[in-house]
Amino acid sequence: MKSGIEELELQCKAVKAASRRMAYLSTEVKDKALHNISDGLLTRQGEILAANQIDYKAAEALGMSTAMLDRLLLNSSRLEFMAQDVLAVAALPDPVGEIFDMRTLPNGLQVGRKRVPLGVIGAIYESRPDVTIDISVLCLKSGNAIVLRGGKEAIRSNSTLAKIVQEAAIRAGVPDGVVQFIANTDRTLISHMLKMNNIIDLIIPRGGVELIRFVKENATMPVVAGGIGVCHTYVDKSADIGKAVAIVFNAKVQRPTVCNALDTLLVHSDVAGHYLPLIAAEWAKASVEMHCDERSLAILKSNSSLKLVPATDDDWGKEFLSLVAAVKVVDSIDEALEQIERYGSGHSEAIITEEYGAAMRFLNEVDAACVYANASTRFTDGSQFGMGAEVGISTQKFHARGPLGLKELTSYKWVIFGSGQVRP
Amino acid sequence: MKSGIEELELQCKAVKAASRRMAYLSTEVKDKALHNISDGLLTRQGEILAANQIDYKAAEALGMSTAMLDRLLLNSSRLEFMAQDVLAVAALPDPVGEIFDMRTLPNGLQVGRKRVPLGVIGAIYESRPDVTIDISVLCLKSGNAIVLRGGKEAIRSNSTLAKIVQEAAIRAGVPDGVVQFIANTDRTLISHMLKMNNIIDLIIPRGGVELIRFVKENATMPVVAGGIGVCHTYVDKSADIGKAVAIVFNAKVQRPTVCNALDTLLVHSDVAGHYLPLIAAEWAKASVEMHCDERSLAILKSNSSLKLVPATDDDWGKEFLSLVAAVKVVDSIDEALEQIERYGSGHSEAIITEEYGAAMRFLNEVDAACVYANASTRFTDGSQFGMGAEVGISTQKFHARGPLGLKELTSYKWVIFGSGQVRP
Repeated sequence: MKSGIEELELQCKAVKAASRRMAYLSTEVKDKALHNISDGLLTRQGEILAANQIDYKAAEALGMSTAMLDRLLLNSSRLEFMAQDVLAVAALPDPVGEIFDMRTLPNGLQVGRKRVPLGVIGAIYESRPDVTIDISVLCLKSGNAIVLRGGKEAIRSNSTLAKIVQEAAIRAGVPDGVVQFIANTDRTLISHMLKMNNIIDLIIPRGGVELIRFVKENATMPVVAGGIGVCHTYVDKSADIGKAVAIVFNAKVQRPTVCNALDTLLVHSDVAGHYLPLIAAEWAKASVEMHCDERSLAILKSNSSLKLVPATDDDWGKEFLSLVAAVKVVDSIDEALEQIERYGSGHSEAIITEEYGAAMRFLNEVDAACVYANASTRFTDGSQFGMGAEVGISTQKFHARGPLGLKELTSYKWVIFGSGQVRP
Repeated sequence: MKSGIEELELQCKAVKAASRRMAYLSTEVKDKALHNISDGLLTRQGEILAANQIDYKAAEALGMSTAMLDRLLLNSSRLEFMAQDVLAVAALPDPVGEIFDMRTLPNGLQVGRKRVPLGVIGAIYESRPDVTIDISVLCLKSGNAIVLRGGKEAIRSNSTLAKIVQEAAIRAGVPDGVVQFIANTDRTLISHMLKMNNIIDLIIPRGGVELIRFVKENATMPVVAGGIGVCHTYVDKSADIGKAVAIVFNAKVQRPTVCNALDTLLVHSDVAGHYLPLIAAEWAKASVEMHCDERSLAILKSNSSLKLVPATDDDWGKEFLSLVAAVKVVDSIDEALEQIERYGSGHSEAIITEEYGAAMRFLNEVDAACVYANASTRFTDGSQFGMGAEVGISTQKFHARGPLGLKELTSYKWVIFGSGQVRP
């Protein structure tokens, strides 16, 4: 019997060879593969749910938390949603093959850039079996080959889903070997995988902070990881107070557990006395706890129905991921910009203002993946931006920033059409 | 007195602060800085050449090779060329601030991407003092701050040039601190610099293979290094023989010491008997040595005036950087594609053919930074591609591929213009 590492190396050799052919596969074949996957999720429901039940019961017996069990669970309605999502990706335009920046040089050479897949994408993920489908579908559509390494707790669900993907792809005419699933759950294989930069062009970790940190520290190839989001919204002195209440409420409350939710509210001192009681009353309805600086506390403390806590130094720059917000009164847009520069994580930042110059200055000067005027930071999301699905949100500047859709899973090559030109 | 590391850290703190302001500096100020630099190179010639003479004499006394001494040397005519090159960069369009992919979503949000600088670029280079000007000018124009670390042997020339750049920039209104020059030549500072990924967004090493390997292995931030170029040209059975002779001669001979020069010539067996003697005769005039496979040797060996050597396994995939070429006869375009896939370094590859289908197949299927039909691989160069200057040629797929010009030294941020939108 082969060792885990030997097997991984054979799989990687196969995926590398297959990836070359993926690069020039027709859109028709790729979309057919996606349709087959969508069909498979519905027609092979029994098989999938049976495998998932084994994983689920094993995890339950081991005492996994309710939240984790919920992530692991598949059922008919979840499979139906997944099948629909796959069709939505199939309907997106194929990013591969687009030729851009084409120009004809004085010597007659026609030089342009042609979009090509990155090559082989590795995914390392934890308990959610839907990631198997999610990543496979985005990679196939963007012409990339894939090495999937899911969590031990979902191994039966993931193997079944990976098999469905593989069979669906081959039936559509995708080269054999394009989707590799690592069935061996030995954790040392992850370290080995992270060293294979001659095979894997990009690693996407999906899971908890520990996994993401491990991958970032040990990978020898580029890593795209969902960033930490410490998001500010600044209510300027010229803000429309109604909009400011609605946007700030939404940014904190609509889904507090995600990276694009509001963490710190900054309010200009000219409007703080009027605005803060209004947003505090709205937030109180959703049980938001406010960690207030001295000035905001002074404004709000007379209302005993609010959950107020004096802010400590740790509150600035903290990602709460819960119904908690830090609140600070500032005396100018400059002070707001400084606070964001110092404590922001470069994810999503917003200004609420009716003053043109303030909006433009904020959009120009804030250095973050997504910078908003008069809208909720909760919109930072590939599907909300009209990009279709996304593999994550990048806070790094190299290659791609913000939501990563299909196009961000590609590179380009220069193509040069000559007629005998030589360099003088 | 401060230690080298303390001083480096102070410089990096200053450069980081300055880089934020660089991001929204006007094109006018940046271009003014470049004009000032160009002027400085001419008006302060005496000072530059005096510093350079001290470096040169010290290097000469230490027995530096003639080739290295030549790289180190500055003189009036070289300074004039440098001054002209700086003006050429000033004349290029400013990449920063361009808004692209702008769309209005159904909810009225206007979402687009705005081009921004990468931030802080570190350059680590060896004996050529002109790199100080080269990198500074490209970084300033693209809105990036810079940390320069030149070689010990050019320290006086580099300090003088860096001072001219700094003074020119400040006089134009560029924030103080944007150009940092590390005057301490202690080599341990390089390792320290490569760990500062919280400050430096990209490292550009310029110099020998040893330096580049060291930087790649030790950097904790992205690295863009000039790639190794193992370049093939394939003469197809339908090639125009006249073009094939001219292009292949040019690709090998016009400048054999650079990465985009031809290393391996592949010739279809249908035309090898006619073509090989013609190119061999041309190459012989330039003293090209041919490392031939058995079939090409059989065709050429009767001509005793040629420099022929039987090829060994090492010749395939070798970057010669000299007047040597490996030569192989193949029986099909498939065999040529396989050879390139196996031995190419992903830099520049060419086909010479009059058959449309063969050209398109080659352009589609070869996975390299630059893929040519009917032209010399020597064109792989930012200025030849009409991009203006370049900082190097990348063979990696992440971020940017091929020649890296001003645009490739940028990232983008998402800007979102709202009017009160919240996420449902």
